Amino acid sequence: MTSTPETDMSDLAIASRAVLKPISQIARSAGIPETAVEPYGRYKAKIDPALLTARGSGLGKVVLVSGMSPTPAGEGKSTMVVGLGDALAAAGTKTMIALREPSVGPSFGMKGGATGGGKSQVLPMDEINLHFTGDFHAITSANNLLMALIDNHLHQGNSLGIDPRRITFKRAVDMNDRALRNVVIGLGGPADGMPRETGFEITAASEVMAVFCLATGLEDLRARLGRMTIGYTRDNAPVTVDELGAAGAMALLLKEAIKPNLVQTIGGTPALIHGGPFANIAHGCNSGVATNTARTLADIVVTEAGFGTDLGAEKFMDIKARYAGCDPDTVVIVATIRALKMHGGVSLEQLREEDVEAVRAGLTNLARHALNISKFGIQPVIGINRFTTDTEAELAVVTEWAAANNIECAVADVWGHGGAGAGELAAAVLRAIEPPNNFSPLYELTQPVEEKILTLVRELYGGVGIEYSAKARRMLEQIHANGWDDLPVCMAKTQYSFSDDPTLLGAPEGFTLQVREIVPKTGAGFIVVITGAITTMPGLPKVPAAMHMDVDDQGRAVGLS
Amino acid sequence: MTSTPETDMSDLAIASRAVLKPISQIARSAGIPETAVEPYGRYKAKIDPALLTARGSGLGKVVLVSGMSPTPAGEGKSTMVVGLGDALAAAGTKTMIALREPSVGPSFGMKGGATGGGKSQVLPMDEINLHFTGDFHAITSANNLLMALIDNHLHQGNSLGIDPRRITFKRAVDMNDRALRNVVIGLGGPADGMPRETGFEITAASEVMAVFCLATGLEDLRARLGRMTIGYTRDNAPVTVDELGAAGAMALLLKEAIKPNLVQTIGGTPALIHGGPFANIAHGCNSGVATNTARTLADIVVTEAGFGTDLGAEKFMDIKARYAGCDPDTVVIVATIRALKMHGGVSLEQLREEDVEAVRAGLTNLARHALNISKFGIQPVIGINRFTTDTEAELAVVTEWAAANNIECAVADVWGHGGAGAGELAAAVLRAIEPPNNFSPLYELTQPVEEKILTLVRELYGGVGIEYSAKARRMLEQIHANGWDDLPVCMAKTQYSFSDDPTLLGAPEGFTLQVREIVPKTGAGFIVVITGAITTMPGLPKVPAAMHMDVDDQGRAVGLS
Repeated sequence: MTSTPETDMSDLAIASRAVLKPISQIARSAGIPETAVEPYGRYKAKIDPALLTARGSGLGKVVLVSGMSPTPAGEGKSTMVVGLGDALAAAGTKTMIALREPSVGPSFGMKGGATGGGKSQVLPMDEINLHFTGDFHAITSANNLLMALIDNHLHQGNSLGIDPRRITFKRAVDMNDRALRNVVIGLGGPADGMPRETGFEITAASEVMAVFCLATGLEDLRARLGRMTIGYTRDNAPVTVDELGAAGAMALLLKEAIKPNLVQTIGGTPALIHGGPFANIAHGCNSGVATNTARTLADIVVTEAGFGTDLGAEKFMDIKARYAGCDPDTVVIVATIRALKMHGGVSLEQLREEDVEAVRAGLTNLARHALNISKFGIQPVIGINRFTTDTEAELAVVTEWAAANNIECAVADVWGHGGAGAGELAAAVLRAIEPPNNFSPLYELTQPVEEKILTLVRELYGGVGIEYSAKARRMLEQIHANGWDDLPVCMAKTQYSFSDDPTLLGAPEGFTLQVREIVPKTGAGFIVVITGAITTMPGLPKVPAAMHMDVDDQGRAVGLS
Repeated sequence: MTSTPETDMSDLAIASRAVLKPISQIARSAGIPETAVEPYGRYKAKIDPALLTARGSGLGKVVLVSGMSPTPAGEGKSTMVVGLGDALAAAGTKTMIALREPSVGPSFGMKGGATGGGKSQVLPMDEINLHFTGDFHAITSANNLLMALIDNHLHQGNSLGIDPRRITFKRAVDMNDRALRNVVIGLGGPADGMPRETGFEITAASEVMAVFCLATGLEDLRARLGRMTIGYTRDNAPVTVDELGAAGAMALLLKEAIKPNLVQTIGGTPALIHGGPFANIAHGCNSGVATNTARTLADIVVTEAGFGTDLGAEKFMDIKARYAGCDPDTVVIVATIRALKMHGGVSLEQLREEDVEAVRAGLTNLARHALNISKFGIQPVIGINRFTTDTEAELAVVTEWAAANNIECAVADVWGHGGAGAGELAAAVLRAIEPPNNFSPLYELTQPVEEKILTLVRELYGGVGIEYSAKARRMLEQIHANGWDDLPVCMAKTQYSFSDDPTLLGAPEGFTLQVREIVPKTGAGFIVVITGAITTMPGLPKVPAAMHMDVDDQGRAVGLS
């Protein structure tokens, strides 16, 4: 069994050769009544969860897919989600996949799309990676309507007494645009608004995105939007969206977007793709509405949380599971020989050489991810995403280590073979979800915010303490004063290391986490803790991927990856 | 025959009671093969023009609907387009309607939607007025991708030597957000881009929107995007999108959007709604692709150009007809008794009182619009949009004046009765398009830009001359130097007056037009001439309409108008 991710055939080429079934047929196979299906083109549809009826068998089980600390070599986590979903379906289990929607901004920079790869892709690949059904645009619009209303409020007399220097909400754009990180707006004179400093975030990092993904439905969405804090008065009293009167219009802009989107894998498994917060600067999971809609329809839902167990998976369990009630039944940790080698000290250029010792050295990273998951009361399953350059000796290092440590582990070749390449992994997952687990979040909501952060640093990251900036410390005082201590925390941290220093690979220890800024998101219902040099607006590289994108003379996409 | 636009029943309420046909049925009735239909929800679809075959009977005739200089009383031009289309269809003519897509920004401010009113609406009203099929969002994305690439180019070393002070392209947002008119970006330090002054335009005013609406298809769209000028070097040499290498990725973002959108009127007439440039600050007509697709399918296409003959209609004939080849066969000028009274000196508060003399005085405005149309070699048809407060004596003033001047004129009650209220107008239109006209644009492309502007000022506006700002004069020199003189002009001017002063109602004469700024749009293929105090980014009023918008407990729209 070999996989071919280094073949000449691009994911786009494979995707465009796949024969898709009409979306109505996929909906029927998933048990969705026709009245609940709103087609968007021939192969995408929005599903109205209000028109579904729960099955007698109760809600489906949740298989959460996480990963090692990512490396530039690429781990193929979405690819594993798709391949595993197809394999579970092929094994006769009623399965659905729930994934995040790709953000279009990063795809013009360096990152490939987020629709899987090879024979394990969700389709139509190009449409999902571009505008899809418009959810990101609706979220951006709702965010920017709020901002226009805030600045208009200042311009028209500021009856709420908002301090223009203390407005914490920012405009959003779904684009990697570093020049918008720090801006001054309202220049030009009295007719052109009130001058003030502000900035833009990428849509995937916005609180509106988080609210969208954590809301249980439209009504809860509207309520959460209303609870968002937009800034403070001169006396540091928080001002909310409800005080401004903007929640209704924002909800109106989101009323169709909140319905999850149905698509299919190359293997024909139904997939809901909905909501897309980043996992390093936001909470990193698809919408709760999608996960729970999938659980209404299927016996097993395979879903993904971004990056490693220190980021997306932790937030899935400490934030999403609390709000959406979708506790995971097992967690798959995706590992690759290439990533293990990089964590073991090999450079990107040397990855093709066999290096058993480097694989062994890199196990420190995987081991800590496995340990992290066990701290939530769940026994993880390790899924090795096989690449053509992997040798049997290298693979054996991982499988033997796993066996010695009593951890379920299977090698899968999902890129080359789709679901057929993930039969063993599917069997391991089915074994893992059989017995009930002892899942519980890592911290209590009643703990003070500082304690919650310290718990994560000590229990999951391997650090010893936290250093707060003066700004962060002032914000902590404000959080206590406003009674926001009961909220979970959402860490903004580099994905490359357990620490806040992206160069510390493997399993670093003894470090102190630098907390630069703290931003309460009272609508989403969490406290964002910004560490190290992480930013909520990415930039573009010297030669952006956009330079290679085009349409051909048949109007088809070129250069998407 | 009375109409009831002042009833308690809102357009939204009427729209939501209408029974819609499935969009596949509307497509069939329009002669669109199923393969060319891509549904977006149940009542919207994108149509692939490449999959249509021309009928033996040739392209349909074009009925362009224009209007008097608008007043705060509202003229209901879109309502007349819909009612007239329904009436022509009811008379047994194969008819399609082509309209612009509404911009979402202004709908949160004061302006109602752009989907007609009463029984003359296009449906689904709420979806068309909100995100529709996402075309505006795609255009905004393409625009902002370009801007991110420009600022990234500066940040990464600026190998093209673009002068950061001479970048003329701006970011776009589909929102009324005056605080974004003038901004400084790139603050924060060397990692956060290059600081420079810039601004945002509303999407409807962007060159990408104009390119989208004037392109003949995806290939032409890509070529036009590539020809756009983004700014200048220190030596004032223009830099294009093609030099930056961004046209392919922009076209990729627009490849689905460029397909026109099919919907239906309450009366069941098929309508293509596609593209939406404003008519005061842009060229003001739906896409050429939509107009020509409709002409492929129907014998008569009723289409609209924004505001009066001095704005949208002029641009339809001098810009759109040249590029898209859709010469109008007749032009309907929509008039209302209320608008005539306001142009005759009556205030908004006094409009309900009968005032025959004011109607007569206001005819100066209507008469000049009629004269303007005749200068293009077309005999206009006047369509009076009847309101409940209109008296027979008032209506008689207009119909008698029209008869005395040999102008076709009919009263229509489209709000209250839909197509059934526009039978006489439809008959007048059918008479008007029978004989061939002598259509020609107002100026030759070979005239210098100053002469083109002067022609419009003297022939259509009633002014005597032009005063250029120093900045505008410098730009004229640059236009001559770059050989852009052969482009048509696109006037950015208040819609309320023939002049550049919005308070000069009726038919002002003897004024001098103030030209503040001139912006060549080399991709769209016109020179924007900004006059008076007009701005390409509107603001919100003290109490924005957004404050009254919401969703109800069934997830339905509330407060859209």
